[in-house]
Amino acid sequence: MVKVHQFGTMQMLVESLLDGFVTAKDMLAAGNTGIGTGAGVDGELILLDGKAYQVNVDGKVQEVPADFPVVFGDVHEADYQVVDQYGKRDLKTLLKNLLAKVGTKNLFFSVKLSGNFQYVQTRSAKKSEKPYPGLGEIAKNQVVFDQKDVKGTMVGYYTPSLYEGVGVPGFHLHFLSDEKDFGGHVLEGKIESVAASVQILDGLSVQLPVANTDYQKANLNDLSHLSKVIHAAES
Amino acid sequence: MVKVHQFGTMQMLVESLLDGFVTAKDMLAAGNTGIGTGAGVDGELILLDGKAYQVNVDGKVQEVPADFPVVFGDVHEADYQVVDQYGKRDLKTLLKNLLAKVGTKNLFFSVKLSGNFQYVQTRSAKKSEKPYPGLGEIAKNQVVFDQKDVKGTMVGYYTPSLYEGVGVPGFHLHFLSDEKDFGGHVLEGKIESVAASVQILDGLSVQLPVANTDYQKANLNDLSHLSKVIHAAES
Repeated sequence: MVKVHQFGTMQMLVESLLDGFVTAKDMLAAGNTGIGTGAGVDGELILLDGKAYQVNVDGKVQEVPADFPVVFGDVHEADYQVVDQYGKRDLKTLLKNLLAKVGTKNLFFSVKLSGNFQYVQTRSAKKSEKPYPGLGEIAKNQVVFDQKDVKGTMVGYYTPSLYEGVGVPGFHLHFLSDEKDFGGHVLEGKIESVAASVQILDGLSVQLPVANTDYQKANLNDLSHLSKVIHAAES
Repeated sequence: MVKVHQFGTMQMLVESLLDGFVTAKDMLAAGNTGIGTGAGVDGELILLDGKAYQVNVDGKVQEVPADFPVVFGDVHEADYQVVDQYGKRDLKTLLKNLLAKVGTKNLFFSVKLSGNFQYVQTRSAKKSEKPYPGLGEIAKNQVVFDQKDVKGTMVGYYTPSLYEGVGVPGFHLHFLSDEKDFGGHVLEGKIESVAASVQILDGLSVQLPVANTDYQKANLNDLSHLSKVIHAAES
């Protein structure tokens, strides 16, 4: 079994530690499938079939170069099992059903939904430059996109609640259209007809920015507001 | 750089999920150095130079067989750098100084102290059988050992505060005497003269008991008391 290999933590994003410390190439070396964001929260990344795409703040999709700097990402080598075929329903309803079929909230797993979507709402972010602003400021520069009747793939991860602050508890999904003209961090969705696949992972492997001085020097011991900020930012 | 490879979580111990799900052999396959505990909190484990030793509830030290079942462990492949030689002082003072020399509270690292100790106080635990009792009951069956003027090795890990509940925030050290007649989970210590080594790790890799039904079914979403219980149990 494989683990989800994570670069960086949600806490780093919350605490404005946004330097890229690995590259798209590093991510793809750890797996062919995943999600992430560029240095300075530069758009939303989705990795599918060994290629890394960015949905930038204009909603434009492009494959990123090997040296594209990354501050946060989750990646694994895909080996999905098809769980079910789903017709018309809300994305949240589907995910609730999928979680029930997996049968536990205590394991990491990856989810892949491929097919036709009635509606997908996504978000992307504008790259921030150093000195990096707080997450509140970054949130102001986020853009929301809506698309109706779109074919594509949603991919991402389920994280147990214990790992809050390391990752995002619950589901965290990104979207890429088959036409590669729409995508981003998934906010909402309505299914038309999709194949839902799941891959149970045997754990989480977190890689930290060991050589980054800002990371080393940051005061990351006050966890009291972390949960609140993450819930606000990821909802 | 290597990661600390962790089997299980502190949360599992807190929630009485004490089935062994890996073996001493599995631990040693992930590294030659580490700490842990057997299924049912069966004593304290210390891995040194590719061998796994158990300090049982009677204080007896023995090398464990390859199939010895393990519920929790941290292990890595040793590649330490000597940081300093320390003379007489309290263990806590030494660790504080070591942390200052490492220069960050935000990275995982391993610590190894080898030499002469004026005093070491350790703890071990009696193996619990299924149905497993709560950690309070297990704590009642813990035994504390004291030793003066002992040569040996303290080894363990520093974990950043974000990972509370996954691991033990701060330092978590086990001890083994050179004579292999004393050891356990370190509670207190006074240094006579030791060489202190550190190995910075680039992250944490957690492996969960994927196939364990009790783990799958446990309600692990109430994190409110986890921190308190861990602090009480590990102090």
